[in-house]
Amino acid sequence: MALKQRRLARRVVGIGRRPSSLRQARRLGAIDYGTTQMNRGVCDADFTVLCTPVDAIANHAMQAAGCCPQGAILTDSGSTKVRIVAQLETELTDRVAFVGSHPLAGSEKSGVAVARPDLFDGRVCVVTKTPRTPKQPLEIVDGFWRSLGARVVRMSPKSHDRAIAYTSHLPHLAAAALSILLPDEYKQVVASGFRDTTRIAAGDPGLWSAIFLENAGPLLESLKEYERVLNEFRKALKSGHTRSLEHLWRRSYAKRRELDSEI
Amino acid sequence: MALKQRRLARRVVGIGRRPSSLRQARRLGAIDYGTTQMNRGVCDADFTVLCTPVDAIANHAMQAAGCCPQGAILTDSGSTKVRIVAQLETELTDRVAFVGSHPLAGSEKSGVAVARPDLFDGRVCVVTKTPRTPKQPLEIVDGFWRSLGARVVRMSPKSHDRAIAYTSHLPHLAAAALSILLPDEYKQVVASGFRDTTRIAAGDPGLWSAIFLENAGPLLESLKEYERVLNEFRKALKSGHTRSLEHLWRRSYAKRRELDSEI
Repeated sequence: MALKQRRLARRVVGIGRRPSSLRQARRLGAIDYGTTQMNRGVCDADFTVLCTPVDAIANHAMQAAGCCPQGAILTDSGSTKVRIVAQLETELTDRVAFVGSHPLAGSEKSGVAVARPDLFDGRVCVVTKTPRTPKQPLEIVDGFWRSLGARVVRMSPKSHDRAIAYTSHLPHLAAAALSILLPDEYKQVVASGFRDTTRIAAGDPGLWSAIFLENAGPLLESLKEYERVLNEFRKALKSGHTRSLEHLWRRSYAKRRELDSEI
Repeated sequence: MALKQRRLARRVVGIGRRPSSLRQARRLGAIDYGTTQMNRGVCDADFTVLCTPVDAIANHAMQAAGCCPQGAILTDSGSTKVRIVAQLETELTDRVAFVGSHPLAGSEKSGVAVARPDLFDGRVCVVTKTPRTPKQPLEIVDGFWRSLGARVVRMSPKSHDRAIAYTSHLPHLAAAALSILLPDEYKQVVASGFRDTTRIAAGDPGLWSAIFLENAGPLLESLKEYERVLNEFRKALKSGHTRSLEHLWRRSYAKRRELDSEI
């Protein structure tokens, strides 16, 4: 939709499992042509973006690489990068190039019905670089996201996965646990604080289980740190120590306010 | 502001510590008259709303009760109820009546500059009832919040504090811990998920420390339950057990979606 509105592609092809979704995507002007067959979809594509769940991306990229034209570039939008990039750097031939991407955009909602042409406007997109990342395709992938309005940040797959564990995966886990915990009889006193804090707890279960498993290492590490901070709160609460609690709240306040000043 | 716009009060008096805030409140049309002196503020008031931090409400109510006219009604907007209501039921004379309230409205922001006349529109307001709550004042307090657009839910102070631990105080603790934990170098990859999940982590440190201490018992109980669910996630992540993770995510998804269908 963003490509179409900015007239950046001669032809946008959508590949999906459900013909009904593809028809809807065409109706909404997101694609020019839709197909359920990978080979038909990528055979003329000089640029392919894989947007499948993180545990399927590498295999779908391999499948696409076997059908798309020589010199084609592939990227993705997966929320984890280490395993995907490693597998493709090992298995992919030089006929095509893969560069990993993670646009930090979207929401807990999915499906073409919630697509928006301005989704990437002003958002960060991480593009991964390793010693084996081919130079020209890397720049083309950078340029692709920039042309959609995103601000590109280059990171190694490892740095990306560790950072995103703290900024996205752990918050998803924390929100999901709050959502699971809510007793039914308390729903009547839920207000905007709970709603905002748990918005991302309504993420797609299959998608998020896959992301958690792909990034289990860094996520477990961040979870351990999280429980350490929860424990600081517990200790302050148990001892009734006002100054410790205030100190924790001042740290929270200062850190969160910094983010607002950077919007 | 809500009272003024709906022309529900002959005169709205603001009592505060800072003359500058009172002047601003008058400029914004929130009050007719402002004073820093409690006795001058409440001497003609048939209805007083105490909006100070939870650890100050009961004492301020006692102070107000000593100055306001016979038969006056006092209520509050505190996020905890057990201790406040218990202290006032013990110490207050029959000359005036106190009924506890907690309007579930507002945000992490404070100060008259963010006041809005529609703040209570469609929001829940808990009004507490105990065997000692006087009947007519209870109905007047219900009516007060309803007249501002709120939906009144009656609860005992104990049920209120336990419920709010799960729907507000624990989410604040969870969000504050996420905010504290964020390494500075990862701020560049913070997106809307983190921002929404931690919005309430920018709450006023003094205010929130006081709330946490007032409700330490129920909050510690909910924190224990929270860590139990976090541990379920950890076990599933460590064992790489896809089905356990998907099961957790499905519970989170279902519970959070229910809330949306009830807006």
